[in-house]
Amino acid sequence: MKLALNQATVKRLTLAEAVDGCVRHGIPAIGLWRDRVQEIGIEAAGKIVRTSGLEVTSLCRGGFLTAGSAEERAAALADNRRAVLEAAGVGTDVLILVVGGLPAGSRDLPGARGAVLDGVAALAPFAAEHGVKLAIEPLHPMFCADRAVVSTLGQALDIAEHFPAEQVGVVVDTYHVWWDPQLEESVARAGRGNRIHSYQECDWILPLPADVLLGRGHVGDGHIDFARMRELVAAAGWRGHAEVEIFNQEIWDADGDQTIATVRARHEALSAASGY
Amino acid sequence: MKLALNQATVKRLTLAEAVDGCVRHGIPAIGLWRDRVQEIGIEAAGKIVRTSGLEVTSLCRGGFLTAGSAEERAAALADNRRAVLEAAGVGTDVLILVVGGLPAGSRDLPGARGAVLDGVAALAPFAAEHGVKLAIEPLHPMFCADRAVVSTLGQALDIAEHFPAEQVGVVVDTYHVWWDPQLEESVARAGRGNRIHSYQECDWILPLPADVLLGRGHVGDGHIDFARMRELVAAAGWRGHAEVEIFNQEIWDADGDQTIATVRARHEALSAASGY
Repeated sequence: MKLALNQATVKRLTLAEAVDGCVRHGIPAIGLWRDRVQEIGIEAAGKIVRTSGLEVTSLCRGGFLTAGSAEERAAALADNRRAVLEAAGVGTDVLILVVGGLPAGSRDLPGARGAVLDGVAALAPFAAEHGVKLAIEPLHPMFCADRAVVSTLGQALDIAEHFPAEQVGVVVDTYHVWWDPQLEESVARAGRGNRIHSYQECDWILPLPADVLLGRGHVGDGHIDFARMRELVAAAGWRGHAEVEIFNQEIWDADGDQTIATVRARHEALSAASGY
Repeated sequence: MKLALNQATVKRLTLAEAVDGCVRHGIPAIGLWRDRVQEIGIEAAGKIVRTSGLEVTSLCRGGFLTAGSAEERAAALADNRRAVLEAAGVGTDVLILVVGGLPAGSRDLPGARGAVLDGVAALAPFAAEHGVKLAIEPLHPMFCADRAVVSTLGQALDIAEHFPAEQVGVVVDTYHVWWDPQLEESVARAGRGNRIHSYQECDWILPLPADVLLGRGHVGDGHIDFARMRELVAAAGWRGHAEVEIFNQEIWDADGDQTIATVRARHEALSAASGY
């Protein structure tokens, strides 16, 4: 499996610095984040990655489709359309969606989930016109209230399957899905439908930190069986990259170059040990 | 729906104090914890609850069936048998099981899940001889690595359905299952099979605290739609209690009598608002 570095893993590096780090460490692909693209503009960002020869595996992120008012939803849709243009501009065909949590003050989970389907339906045709696929990312259920009411791969597929696979698919992120008792069947189902648009890796480490958003570890530091994860996605037909995306304050505070070296080393070790 | 107080909600009270609090506040049932039973002995504990007239809805908790070595598993089984005797001795027919996480150093999640089935199979006949039903509690997926490899109601039912319903069923705890996209179908399935052996309530509040085990709120303080939860379990045939179990350091530090009053008041408000 080929390696990609998600830019959020080296949060303090600019897009140019992250791209340079990948090139120097022999990592052939990168996943970008909108804030670092916007910082220099789509055109400059696109030029940097094209010049580098790196493949751009994804752009993070669109989504947040669950807002309560029609006005907020329209604003979210407009922002998602900008994200589609950014994705196309930097040369990736995958826009990752974090769908959003419960609207402020609401406990209507089925309603919020319905809003996700509506939002994806509103966005997908525009994305398709620009050659961009939407990748719905199920987030770990501990983020259900505040970040993503889509909590499992099966649920993400239930939404995605309303649309053609070349328009809407899913992200398989080890951190978010490793615990799922239906993981095998859901990954296989995603593969059969050509719905895996991104495969991301980071590890589940304990104890969880005060901010659970930042409790992720380098591949191999935690409790996830990555050999099994790679075997599952490979068996499901995934021939893309393993994109390493780690949110962790300590890692963010560390030297970016060292972090990229660690990401590369862990990938090599895993590939050697797992055969993937 | 009738109210029960789980003793862990007033962790600092002894069994006698918690029972007294229920009686004074007109709460007709209590769920007990083993440490507070063992503190005074099964016989004394049984006498206190019988004298009080309270119903005992459950004993917490057995389980932790996933240990890696045969010796550890044998010790766990022996301890679970003691828990069965304690349950019978205090007059409840429900022993709640928290099944255990990954064994130390292991990443073999399917293996640990298999060990749960083996452990339940070893315990269920003994429990049945003593008139005690095992209630498998799926824990929120954020506890998968360290506390419970059973993460969903559907998965708990997959295990329970290997056994007669009068031997093995499940706990529906709002905190652990509220996010589940398959909640409706799993609760209905549990009801059809007479597998709901306990229904517990506490709320999902944010932000999660440093120790996520203690991040639970009084009913109504968080993001869970309890009217929907009660409607689901009632529609599934549940005619037992709503047992309020809250792990929260602030609530534990508060005056126990005030906490019991709050539990009662929230229950009354919810019953009035929801019709359950």
